[in-house]
Amino acid sequence: MMPGGRNLDTIAATCIITLCLACLHVTSLKSQLFTRLGGLRYTTEPPISYKTLYFDQKIDHFGFLQDGTFKQRYLVADNHWQQPNGPILFYTGNEGDITWASCGKLQNSWAPCWFSQNIVTMESLCHLVKTRTDVKHLNYLTSEQALADFAVLIQNIKTIVPGAQNSPVIAVGGSYGGMLSAWFRMKYPNSVVGALAASAPIWQFPDMVPCGDFYKIVTQDFAKSGKNCDANIRRSWKAINNVSSSASGLQWLSEEFSLCTPLKNKNDAVSFKSWLQETWVNLAMVDYPYEANFLQPLPRWPIQVVCKSLGFDSTVSDEQLLHGVAQAAKVYYNYTGNAPCLNTSQTATSSLGALGWFFQACTEMVMPMCTDGVQDMFEPEEWSFQAFSDECYSVFGVRPRADWAGTVYGGKKIGSHSNIIFSNGGLDPWSAGGVTSNISQSLVSIMIPDGAHHLDLRYSNKLDPPSVRAARALELKYFQKWIRQAQKSTGTGFTTSKNRKNSP
Amino acid sequence: MMPGGRNLDTIAATCIITLCLACLHVTSLKSQLFTRLGGLRYTTEPPISYKTLYFDQKIDHFGFLQDGTFKQRYLVADNHWQQPNGPILFYTGNEGDITWASCGKLQNSWAPCWFSQNIVTMESLCHLVKTRTDVKHLNYLTSEQALADFAVLIQNIKTIVPGAQNSPVIAVGGSYGGMLSAWFRMKYPNSVVGALAASAPIWQFPDMVPCGDFYKIVTQDFAKSGKNCDANIRRSWKAINNVSSSASGLQWLSEEFSLCTPLKNKNDAVSFKSWLQETWVNLAMVDYPYEANFLQPLPRWPIQVVCKSLGFDSTVSDEQLLHGVAQAAKVYYNYTGNAPCLNTSQTATSSLGALGWFFQACTEMVMPMCTDGVQDMFEPEEWSFQAFSDECYSVFGVRPRADWAGTVYGGKKIGSHSNIIFSNGGLDPWSAGGVTSNISQSLVSIMIPDGAHHLDLRYSNKLDPPSVRAARALELKYFQKWIRQAQKSTGTGFTTSKNRKNSP
Repeated sequence: MMPGGRNLDTIAATCIITLCLACLHVTSLKSQLFTRLGGLRYTTEPPISYKTLYFDQKIDHFGFLQDGTFKQRYLVADNHWQQPNGPILFYTGNEGDITWASCGKLQNSWAPCWFSQNIVTMESLCHLVKTRTDVKHLNYLTSEQALADFAVLIQNIKTIVPGAQNSPVIAVGGSYGGMLSAWFRMKYPNSVVGALAASAPIWQFPDMVPCGDFYKIVTQDFAKSGKNCDANIRRSWKAINNVSSSASGLQWLSEEFSLCTPLKNKNDAVSFKSWLQETWVNLAMVDYPYEANFLQPLPRWPIQVVCKSLGFDSTVSDEQLLHGVAQAAKVYYNYTGNAPCLNTSQTATSSLGALGWFFQACTEMVMPMCTDGVQDMFEPEEWSFQAFSDECYSVFGVRPRADWAGTVYGGKKIGSHSNIIFSNGGLDPWSAGGVTSNISQSLVSIMIPDGAHHLDLRYSNKLDPPSVRAARALELKYFQKWIRQAQKSTGTGFTTSKNRKNSP
Repeated sequence: MMPGGRNLDTIAATCIITLCLACLHVTSLKSQLFTRLGGLRYTTEPPISYKTLYFDQKIDHFGFLQDGTFKQRYLVADNHWQQPNGPILFYTGNEGDITWASCGKLQNSWAPCWFSQNIVTMESLCHLVKTRTDVKHLNYLTSEQALADFAVLIQNIKTIVPGAQNSPVIAVGGSYGGMLSAWFRMKYPNSVVGALAASAPIWQFPDMVPCGDFYKIVTQDFAKSGKNCDANIRRSWKAINNVSSSASGLQWLSEEFSLCTPLKNKNDAVSFKSWLQETWVNLAMVDYPYEANFLQPLPRWPIQVVCKSLGFDSTVSDEQLLHGVAQAAKVYYNYTGNAPCLNTSQTATSSLGALGWFFQACTEMVMPMCTDGVQDMFEPEEWSFQAFSDECYSVFGVRPRADWAGTVYGGKKIGSHSNIIFSNGGLDPWSAGGVTSNISQSLVSIMIPDGAHHLDLRYSNKLDPPSVRAARALELKYFQKWIRQAQKSTGTGFTTSKNRKNSP
């Protein structure tokens, strides 16, 4: 996906925002991985081990001439598993490496803080699956195939794991994985009794939400984190244009930002601006209330720290302004002070399954984004489906289908489904495409005003705001309700009367 | 699908029962076509014309490398259409030619008798679609692609037809088309507000119902239609074996049955028995309470007429018994007395999309059938998935996936869906795999004890039993309820708040 219609040609040079959609959960969990390796700063829970297993999964669920299989990896952390019929948390992975978004992490962050504190029934087998990223089989890299993978794997687990036959399964996922969780419950309610879709922008599709809302939220995050902060970023683009119009200016910019590869021409300056824009977006997504380690470590409330370098009034020169912007960028890329230089070809998310996600964005995950420079702090750029489609065609030889996601997943007409929690963070730009108000009694929205991108799925932390603690408690209550419903159900529910055994 | 594991080699020689599943609705409507052409015996409604339209449909909804389209034909009868926002009946066709199962027929049989008698709101645009039978694209001939076709076409209709944008759409289908209707509501509740699945055996899949129930019901139909009727058919197989063991016996059999192509050897005799077995099954499906024309005309309650030739006690000779069987078969194949001979390579359904349905049976529509000769009147034959799979592989190079239909459509775990009527006829062997009791308040079963295969979808008739009249009235009440629900719904229902206009 190319927010604002930016060139696919710049893939190599700049990380694209919607890539982050798909992989941010992975990076956020990766930060937890590093945190854990660094001494488990805010948790006393020990690491929980998981098994790595493989399943012979059909390459194509929707055609039969291709009958091959691939080894689909999944992770199982069954230390809390209670058979028979104990609940199973099924983590719907995304295209990132599942050992990062791993079950062990989820268990670590979630099960102990939610389920082991006198909440006895909520033990879990925790399963994660990896959607297919095999380049050879790119045509099968679709959300529909991923959902079918989940359904077939769950059926297999219930068959082969003793005592799991009648276990209620709950889908859990964040970001793109959260969209998969929601869609999984919609399309396969026989497989899962409910779903937690955390920070899942299931409405970030054509004609569902205004294309500019995403960047508006990014801008609001900066506006409320420091005086003049958004205004100075808005002014910075013209300042960059001014300064980069000369060779000496490009050199100055490169030095000011400590770039590993100096800017040499106008194209480089364009890529540089994209990189900066993505940096601000990433900061909005990870504006967490405590220190967290991503590919680079970040301070607590990082945007507030960033904005300390951007408090100028409007009288500063371009150079003064850009000096501040450079200091701000270094908060993100060099908080520890150990980075020798800043690499504009890398962001937090550059190494995570880019090809796969781009293919999905160029086929069914068409997510319009636009900026106007007025309601947001970015250079104006309209959304052009045609330009986007042409770029996809030139790169992959495929055309995106603008309406398909809405048709297959129902768009705004999802009221007849049930048992889905849509949690959203008020600071998270992806909440623009999320479900932020209740649809029915069992399709509920949980807003976390102080939350960035799926804060609720992260480790509990002593600095967690009350809103995320409350969200987690409420999510747990829904889980328990779904499990009770499932246990009560007869032949028409999640168990068949024929297969029914006593529930725990 | 090969009931009882019969050889695919005999495709050319004998029509297979599950082919009838898929096409019987077509043939039943075809009878109406002939009836109409013959003078509309039991209805005074004039024929209603329809438009034939074409839509550029994606060949593959679930992959993007194949981005081609085909011209998907659909029929529109909009003489009752009331814009804006009038309801639309969407007839989910099957693999047969839709001009047989045509909208005009449905309108003719249904709209007048149900909707025009002081029931004002129930006017309809009536749409039918044809699933893909293009041999070149056989890999895309799946139920999932068909459902996606429906969804995309409905979206298109709502876009291009003035006043249809907020029309509630109800899916209607019979037999395999009824399965599609039910599955369509399950998978695309955003597209249709409800579905009538008439005689839809959605549970005729592995491990859902006993494989022998289908033939038990066939047998019961004969048992209750005449003394000794089922017993004599049960005895006939051995009599055929006895008689066909000699060349003179084969000749006698051929003459007795007036076969167009005389039986020459044991293999011919095996095919002959399959043909007879299918004849009895077909009779069970079309055991209607009034005269009806299929490929051959039939009397009212045809099994009662058939059984008049099969009332012997157990003392008759093989030849006497088989003489009676021949007379019985001729009720089905030569009721008018005009057939010069009986063609064992043809049945009522032999010309209707056989290749397409066989491919579907050999991929996802795996429907186990078996006989034991005790609880049914047929030669014992176990269900063997492996044998079936091997036959499919030899014919198409594909392997059926036994569990897929249950995984993708939920099997018995469909309780969380809503607004589906499952109607079933007590005489219809396909009711063995149907939903014959209520699952919830909005997943309801309507039994028609005197009904054969989707009698409720046929023309109204002065000889209709009260049970089918009551069924139709009840179905209509549900339709009206769904339409009211839809009209009341706000942004979360079938219309989005953004697109909402006043409802009628």
